[in-house]
Amino acid sequence: MFSKILVANRGEVALRVMRAARELGVKTAAVYSTEDADTYPVRFADEAVCIGPAQAAKSYLVIPNIIAAAKTTGAQAVHPGYGFLAENAAFARACADNDLVFIGPSPECIERMGDKSSARETMKSCGVPTVPGSDGCVDTVEEARAFADEVGYPVLIKATAGGGGKGMREVHDASQLEAQYRAARTEAGAAFGNDGVYLEKLVLRPRHVEVQVLADDFGNNVSLCERDCSVQRRHQKLIEEAPSPALSDDLRRAMSKAAAKAVRATGYRNAGTIEFLLAPDGSFYFMEMNTRVQVEHPVSEQITGTDIIKEQLRIAAGEPMSCASRAPFAPFGHAMEFRINAEDPSCGFRPCPGTITLFEPPAGPGIRIESYVRTGSRISPHYDSLVAKLIVSGQDRDEVLARARRALDEFRIEGIATTIPFHRAVLENQVFCAGEAATDFIETQMGDLL
Amino acid sequence: MFSKILVANRGEVALRVMRAARELGVKTAAVYSTEDADTYPVRFADEAVCIGPAQAAKSYLVIPNIIAAAKTTGAQAVHPGYGFLAENAAFARACADNDLVFIGPSPECIERMGDKSSARETMKSCGVPTVPGSDGCVDTVEEARAFADEVGYPVLIKATAGGGGKGMREVHDASQLEAQYRAARTEAGAAFGNDGVYLEKLVLRPRHVEVQVLADDFGNNVSLCERDCSVQRRHQKLIEEAPSPALSDDLRRAMSKAAAKAVRATGYRNAGTIEFLLAPDGSFYFMEMNTRVQVEHPVSEQITGTDIIKEQLRIAAGEPMSCASRAPFAPFGHAMEFRINAEDPSCGFRPCPGTITLFEPPAGPGIRIESYVRTGSRISPHYDSLVAKLIVSGQDRDEVLARARRALDEFRIEGIATTIPFHRAVLENQVFCAGEAATDFIETQMGDLL
Repeated sequence: MFSKILVANRGEVALRVMRAARELGVKTAAVYSTEDADTYPVRFADEAVCIGPAQAAKSYLVIPNIIAAAKTTGAQAVHPGYGFLAENAAFARACADNDLVFIGPSPECIERMGDKSSARETMKSCGVPTVPGSDGCVDTVEEARAFADEVGYPVLIKATAGGGGKGMREVHDASQLEAQYRAARTEAGAAFGNDGVYLEKLVLRPRHVEVQVLADDFGNNVSLCERDCSVQRRHQKLIEEAPSPALSDDLRRAMSKAAAKAVRATGYRNAGTIEFLLAPDGSFYFMEMNTRVQVEHPVSEQITGTDIIKEQLRIAAGEPMSCASRAPFAPFGHAMEFRINAEDPSCGFRPCPGTITLFEPPAGPGIRIESYVRTGSRISPHYDSLVAKLIVSGQDRDEVLARARRALDEFRIEGIATTIPFHRAVLENQVFCAGEAATDFIETQMGDLL
Repeated sequence: MFSKILVANRGEVALRVMRAARELGVKTAAVYSTEDADTYPVRFADEAVCIGPAQAAKSYLVIPNIIAAAKTTGAQAVHPGYGFLAENAAFARACADNDLVFIGPSPECIERMGDKSSARETMKSCGVPTVPGSDGCVDTVEEARAFADEVGYPVLIKATAGGGGKGMREVHDASQLEAQYRAARTEAGAAFGNDGVYLEKLVLRPRHVEVQVLADDFGNNVSLCERDCSVQRRHQKLIEEAPSPALSDDLRRAMSKAAAKAVRATGYRNAGTIEFLLAPDGSFYFMEMNTRVQVEHPVSEQITGTDIIKEQLRIAAGEPMSCASRAPFAPFGHAMEFRINAEDPSCGFRPCPGTITLFEPPAGPGIRIESYVRTGSRISPHYDSLVAKLIVSGQDRDEVLARARRALDEFRIEGIATTIPFHRAVLENQVFCAGEAATDFIETQMGDLL
């Protein structure tokens, strides 16, 4: 195991990584911007290096500063957390060039999965389902009809030169096809000077379900079950849970198997997440792979009894992961994560940085708090608005729902607005409580709040 | 399920019960002494009734006051917590007489288990092992020798009229028997005017291992594995863990089986704990049964994914327990509880009541806090000194040890002395870390602190 690592991040994830490292007997070096000098993770670390001013572009994103901090402190490895440089292949390469272990996959894996079309091709080639598409321009109505007949309606027509929804048309049955095809081409031509279009199967009311994977150098390749992250606002996840209420055991096995294939095909090492779109009929399609630890990793830890950060460190240090002997994992109970952001849900989730005059999190059975703040902490306007993650566990989903209501009612944060009232409202919503929320949940069900 | 219960207790256990009730949709009424008026459980409850002044004998122990509070608030049932009236058969009877459900076993069970000798007879009669004893006076050396030869050395000679160690003699081999027998009789005669003695097998360096049981009206009788509570100071438990590092799977099954027998034989209902002495050779003997929830119940919850308080409410309400379908339980991971008391371990564990000027518990994976205090709370000199329970969980015992060190280092309580430094020292002790602590652990290993 490493004797010292540098944590190239801030906030709750920096503290999360440092706690795991300390439990493994690994010393930690923090980096911080001048804005973050007084935060708890900086105090928690064994040592800390200032890497620049508040703006991330001048501190947390400056590769040479972070490499210098690692070399100065004598760290042997760097944990990037999530965000900032976590999926930056150049950073992973810079680490390697400076004899630092990057705690994550290889730069090649980061690159291949970072490019959407190469990721999609990789997945298709190893038999992981992707959303069926026409793979190139569709030049005639007949060709469009043949594709739609093959994959089934509804389909989506998209401009090859497109963006912003221009030249995009949904087609829900065969009778609409010709008119929509012609309209899309006309619109695309007018908007982009290029009327080329292609077709994709349209997945209606999909759920966002992702599989947490771990792979090491000893041939262990395990999935820690799935997470359901359908409750999103503009692609920002707000509530995540494990297991997904939409998955049968068979579907869980099939999705885990697809994830394992993807890991094998890419030679992936360390922790990663394969995101799928799950259609109401149970078919699922690869969306993307995140080549880092995710904000919502704790729900997987709760239902599998693992510590994903520690496994990341073990794998990066060339050790076998410690949980392999317990695989394949079946969910033990249920867990949900609520992101407590410094945002005002009654004002369109407007960020509300400021000073926390009282921070009293709930406690008791099934309550886990991941946060870097305490009473008196300041939420900076320079970074994301995540204040705390409330992770609630229980023997089943109903217990988690009831416990989460109790815990959110107890959670006191004063001085700033937070998403606590939003979460409390979601827990009264029948669609959510029935486990039926799809990615349109917030728009269709929580409209009053938006 | 009940619509409202009265919680006849204070401090962390009152809050623990109220949180469980709230998660089940059950309203809660608190009782409090004038001393406790400003505590968090009183604010948390849906309503609260003052039942007298600070001294427990004038408030928490006054049965008529508590019954009156239950009737006034319209509660249907009473949860006694632990301590105070929790094992008082008269209280359980007073509840029944006033059409209140006592959330616990029948008064008859409380009585039978409360009397040590009737409890021992009950266990013997149903085949649960008890410490072999001579069952009455041993009037001659020959009789004493026959007993000792039968059960094996060492044995203990005790005065029938005895107490305080007078007339008590350990006999480690046959050569000592006659001399010690005569000395015991002489000493007993001088001390009590009665020189009768009896013999018991002496278990050297026993561990304290207890089995958590749950039984309902539907024939479900489950054990939630065992807890090891060997780290005690003058019979006060300070650290508890589950599973016991001393038990093999076979021994665990045997002990659970003995516990299930005891439950069946006594017609026991609700949650209870059967305490055993575990000898170094793996034989175990019934000590006593606690007919209530125990302070250390959370470690069993952590490794079985159950909520024992909720099960108590379900059982008392005439519902089946919800965890029966998952029995028999095998331990899922490992858990340890550290009792954070307002006591100064550097001054013989002298109680240190006072005002907590800062309360910042640790957080992160595997950390559960059960406490009723926050920054500004006052620890009263009138009650027990328990401030908080730190419950640490992990995939195995080694992870729990490392995590507990990290968590105790992060735990900040200012304004009063606590047992945190004691726990931190225990976690550096090789005997404890190796899982080899017996009930003599604190005396033999932590002597510097006493």
